[in-house]
Amino acid sequence: MSEQTSPETAGAKLIDGKAFARNLREQTRLEVTAFHEKHAVTPGLAVVLVGNDPASEVYVRNKALETHHVGMRSFMHMLPETTSEASLLKLIDRLNDDPEIHGILVQLPLPKHIDPHRITNAISPNKDVDGLGEVNAGRLSVGLPGIIPCTPLGCLMLLKSELGDLRGLNATVIGASNLVGKPMALLLLNEGCTVSVGHIDTKEPAALARSADILIVATGKNGLVKHDWVKPGATVIDVGITRVPTANGKTKLVGDVAFAEVAPIAGRITPVPGGVGPMTIACLLRNTLKAARMSVGDKGCKESGQKNWLPY
Amino acid sequence: MSEQTSPETAGAKLIDGKAFARNLREQTRLEVTAFHEKHAVTPGLAVVLVGNDPASEVYVRNKALETHHVGMRSFMHMLPETTSEASLLKLIDRLNDDPEIHGILVQLPLPKHIDPHRITNAISPNKDVDGLGEVNAGRLSVGLPGIIPCTPLGCLMLLKSELGDLRGLNATVIGASNLVGKPMALLLLNEGCTVSVGHIDTKEPAALARSADILIVATGKNGLVKHDWVKPGATVIDVGITRVPTANGKTKLVGDVAFAEVAPIAGRITPVPGGVGPMTIACLLRNTLKAARMSVGDKGCKESGQKNWLPY
Repeated sequence: MSEQTSPETAGAKLIDGKAFARNLREQTRLEVTAFHEKHAVTPGLAVVLVGNDPASEVYVRNKALETHHVGMRSFMHMLPETTSEASLLKLIDRLNDDPEIHGILVQLPLPKHIDPHRITNAISPNKDVDGLGEVNAGRLSVGLPGIIPCTPLGCLMLLKSELGDLRGLNATVIGASNLVGKPMALLLLNEGCTVSVGHIDTKEPAALARSADILIVATGKNGLVKHDWVKPGATVIDVGITRVPTANGKTKLVGDVAFAEVAPIAGRITPVPGGVGPMTIACLLRNTLKAARMSVGDKGCKESGQKNWLPY
Repeated sequence: MSEQTSPETAGAKLIDGKAFARNLREQTRLEVTAFHEKHAVTPGLAVVLVGNDPASEVYVRNKALETHHVGMRSFMHMLPETTSEASLLKLIDRLNDDPEIHGILVQLPLPKHIDPHRITNAISPNKDVDGLGEVNAGRLSVGLPGIIPCTPLGCLMLLKSELGDLRGLNATVIGASNLVGKPMALLLLNEGCTVSVGHIDTKEPAALARSADILIVATGKNGLVKHDWVKPGATVIDVGITRVPTANGKTKLVGDVAFAEVAPIAGRITPVPGGVGPMTIACLLRNTLKAARMSVGDKGCKESGQKNWLPY
């Protein structure tokens, strides 16, 4: 991790998620090679897209490419918008039974006629590399080993890499979604943090945020978190990512944190873009390798160098 | 709920869990009768005890008796301390397949040679009336319908009965166990509370507790919560229950809250005994009825009078 400091911050360290993710992908690539040498198995990830949402098409293409880049097999299933729930379930069954597939990801959102919970829960828990099914959610809740959703996992890796042991730190999570907020809160609780969760109904979100040594924001509300939401020296992780127009008629990506006013106060902060974003796919690859290891009963972690961001 | 006030409280209302549980059992008894008339099925609960722990023997006997009292079938399996994990798993398999059994409860703690997670997760999720398996933990985490652990469910029923809609209230849970603290936090989050969870590593537990409109304490530390932990007017739910010696050589039950000094400050408070304690078995019976309903595809809640503490 470089000690890069942004020009507009008085001293807050920028957490370089892009560099971290690059290292993590390279580490994963090496481990995929070693895993193949040991077990003669190449981890395989199947990505399923239903419909023609342009953003989703970009996401699944990037996931497929990055999977390929770390030496895994990548399988793409692009189905028409009119695909029935029954036929999607049949495909998932087939992927569940396919020994060449270790991870299955169904890109969300799905068309309205398909129940996302039914689909997510149809994926075999040991192939559920998004970690969004009820079994993996339950394993995380009770503290058992399982597959952890990619974005909160990425946030936790950045946090542990920056701060080391998190035990006893006050963490506030703004946003209580199944995708980020709730699993993030459970992960931080399992790490020994005192955890508070705020959301749309929270009466004094600024005060709740200001009590935190670690502030994680995942609301999708561009610029929500102002300078008076942040305790001086706190570590701020911005999960939000919104595309907004700029003065010159182009667009740019911004986060949930008003970066320019928060960065001088925070101790460390993730930028948008280049913070949490790149971690998500890197963690998806990590989860796929983990799923492949589980499929052959290989614990994996002990042999891979034991850096504190790699037990995941 | 009676407006009973304890002699030593200046105005705090005592939350009478004993009376609430009695009403809930009576309501359950009526619904069991109606359910039998409609479906010709009698809900059945199997309770499994391994070993001779005297406290556990009392608990399972009470569970069996109360099951019987509300018109359900009660099955007891008392196995020797030397029972192997394999043979316990075989029994659970048989109970999972038995159509007369709708709920299965394995009394904890288990002897050391048996992995409690393996046993809990062997129970079919739809018969897991303790709600402690990973599938039900996951359903609670993602907000899907499932079976909710009895003690947090009982606490939530008391809270909703006292306070109505909980949305936007600040709730602090002290204790982060799988049995109470974590499911309680997720339940309150699903109800729209701003939720904070403190535990043994929390640096300023009194301040965390004092920020709460709803304070739930489940630590097992007799008298932990003092007057300066409680915001005036807050609702205090004391899950702790410890037996301590008294001056006259006898013993008495006390909670995690220093009742005499907290009661004058709190708006409402559960006593120990007679607060949360009686709710646990009443909710177990509720969960067993729910499991029986699920087994025949009966949604149940709509037909049962719609009081706000009964959708569970």
